[in-house]
Amino acid sequence: MLHVKTPEEALRLIRENFGPCISDERIPLTESVGRTLAEDICAEEFVPDFNRSTVDGFAVYARDTFGSSDSMPAILQKAGEVAMGSPAPCPLQKGKCLSVPTGGEVPEGADCVVMFEHTEDYGEGMVGITKPAAPGENMIFRGDDVSPGDVLLKAGHVLTAHDLGALAALGIAAVSVRAKPTVGILSTGDELVEFAKKPRKGQIRDVNSVLLTALFTQAGAAAKSYGIIRDNAEDLNQALNTAVSQCHMVLISGGSSVGRKDATAGVIEQNGRMLFHGIAMKPGKPTILGVVEGKPVFGLPGHPVAAYLVSQLFALPLLRILTGRREKRFCIRARLCESLSSNHGRAEYVGVTLAEENGTVIAQPIHGKSGLITRLIHSDGYICIPRDCEGLKKGAEVSVWLWDR
Amino acid sequence: MLHVKTPEEALRLIRENFGPCISDERIPLTESVGRTLAEDICAEEFVPDFNRSTVDGFAVYARDTFGSSDSMPAILQKAGEVAMGSPAPCPLQKGKCLSVPTGGEVPEGADCVVMFEHTEDYGEGMVGITKPAAPGENMIFRGDDVSPGDVLLKAGHVLTAHDLGALAALGIAAVSVRAKPTVGILSTGDELVEFAKKPRKGQIRDVNSVLLTALFTQAGAAAKSYGIIRDNAEDLNQALNTAVSQCHMVLISGGSSVGRKDATAGVIEQNGRMLFHGIAMKPGKPTILGVVEGKPVFGLPGHPVAAYLVSQLFALPLLRILTGRREKRFCIRARLCESLSSNHGRAEYVGVTLAEENGTVIAQPIHGKSGLITRLIHSDGYICIPRDCEGLKKGAEVSVWLWDR
Repeated sequence: MLHVKTPEEALRLIRENFGPCISDERIPLTESVGRTLAEDICAEEFVPDFNRSTVDGFAVYARDTFGSSDSMPAILQKAGEVAMGSPAPCPLQKGKCLSVPTGGEVPEGADCVVMFEHTEDYGEGMVGITKPAAPGENMIFRGDDVSPGDVLLKAGHVLTAHDLGALAALGIAAVSVRAKPTVGILSTGDELVEFAKKPRKGQIRDVNSVLLTALFTQAGAAAKSYGIIRDNAEDLNQALNTAVSQCHMVLISGGSSVGRKDATAGVIEQNGRMLFHGIAMKPGKPTILGVVEGKPVFGLPGHPVAAYLVSQLFALPLLRILTGRREKRFCIRARLCESLSSNHGRAEYVGVTLAEENGTVIAQPIHGKSGLITRLIHSDGYICIPRDCEGLKKGAEVSVWLWDR
Repeated sequence: MLHVKTPEEALRLIRENFGPCISDERIPLTESVGRTLAEDICAEEFVPDFNRSTVDGFAVYARDTFGSSDSMPAILQKAGEVAMGSPAPCPLQKGKCLSVPTGGEVPEGADCVVMFEHTEDYGEGMVGITKPAAPGENMIFRGDDVSPGDVLLKAGHVLTAHDLGALAALGIAAVSVRAKPTVGILSTGDELVEFAKKPRKGQIRDVNSVLLTALFTQAGAAAKSYGIIRDNAEDLNQALNTAVSQCHMVLISGGSSVGRKDATAGVIEQNGRMLFHGIAMKPGKPTILGVVEGKPVFGLPGHPVAAYLVSQLFALPLLRILTGRREKRFCIRARLCESLSSNHGRAEYVGVTLAEENGTVIAQPIHGKSGLITRLIHSDGYICIPRDCEGLKKGAEVSVWLWDR
């Protein structure tokens, strides 16, 4: 008997039973892209660290330019030049100006910069300003962007290339990040052979080891495959215990249907406890989640498409919980290009291929009773037909979730 | 004088002047996720390779079940069991049935499978079928999904975890992929110091080396940083020639504005030819693209935000062209949460932060005159305000392009 949960209940049980458990490590900033911050990052400096010009021009007192025009320029004495990469040679005095390049330091006393386009060089060190400037114009003040103590990024943030740029701007050369979580992958089934071998009649290749290793490696984990385990409780018990002792999370694919030898459920109950057995979804119904030695152990369906979908919907989110990883996810709005019939009391997940036609994104469902993994090749993501929905009409607007890949 | 191109013209010049140039390498399937296929992948086998049951049940002749019901079951003789992972023990004869597990081989002669739920065991090898079955029901036929010679994936496709699963199902153990393109990164500017050092007054940290190395590494390139080059034509000439000899594409950041020492443009013209100098966009106007020894050389703005944006819009697409990489990209539709004022004759690109509120995705523009990289930290992507647009109103629906990260 399966005590079947809805997908929402399954996710709630996952959130209630697990939390961050991955240790930290300190690594060079330059190697940290894609990693999960284990600490809040606070600024220790001002950004920018000095008043900077945003244009090539003359640093002036704004008040000296008031009332100026093409016909009545304000005449200022050029007191020097600021060189790129050097401090301003002197403070600015009233009635004077200093030339400043873009990004150069605006000298003390100056409160704005006039672009060269609005100035005239009269020679002999005299400059005409032909347009009034407002205080603050064309410059950035020290600390405009960041001041010491500002929290820039919070623990759990996944570092991007532009985050690395920002942290480099602050001189942060090393960061504490979560270590890579280790995910153990076991395939069970007497019918399985290693994928590179030619199966005999009735045998099938072990697709899930390749599929799940690739998926969890891409998601930032250290995936560890334990190969093919035969359909008996003793072998599975031994392999599970080895994997649990070496990994933060274990995925056992195959053997999770009641109709089959029910080794996975048995071995989880023998070594720990079951959180749920069965999710009201299609495909993926015979999914198991248990806890062994405090670690999550998934029993995934043996069917690769179902194992993949359950991984996307439940195992990857759980991996993010273990890593304390916060990520935003957004779906793509698309028009369904054909009707999809209703399902029967289970949320149904359908792979779709996206294409753009005249500015509209079109979602084409992946067909075929086979439901084989080869069908998924061109799918970009999936849509969900809720359990209480009688199907989706051609032209309906749907939310497409892109695969984690 | 800048002969400024529109962003569309710049992209057209990129497409016209460059094509795939990266050599191939053969690697194990299990290491190929995220890589670009260099060959079409054709199936050499049938998927599935034998007629398979999709349920636990009895393989039968459909005709033997016609007219059966709960009150009038069709009585068949059980001729054996198909074991998982083994060939069917015998072909099916009329008036008989064989039990088959999900995924097991449907014996020769059987044309459908009846689920156990619709059968009764009468003992002594006799089975009652209580529901008529249609030919083909609950089974997948050999080659239903893939037959030998079918093209599964085309050259240029970027391999995902589920592609690896599909290729594993076909026993494909190695694939030809494009080698990683090498991207040379040079930062120019007398004001720059290495990011981990404390800048003196007027100096700034070299953010672009860190930013661009991270961005291009994430995009699948082997990024090679040549460090900080001083603002003189001789040093830059030497560094450019070294980089061009070692890389497929070179990015020089800084020194691309006319107002500044115009070393980048000069050194490109000295060694090759210029494709364009200046793009009508904000930020990013002083962008240069040239060709040296047949290789693309970008002069990126020195400002990290501008260098980042130009990389996202032009340098990463060019990298994909060099690699022959075909990727689908879709934008997120969102509501602008405040008005954005018009720009002046240039397409304007604004970083936005996305959030979901009551099922609507809200885009919050990143503010601040500073335009510093630290502002970009929480941006998820960007929107474009076209050059002929007078601004965008609060509540307007906008297309948000997520950053490549």
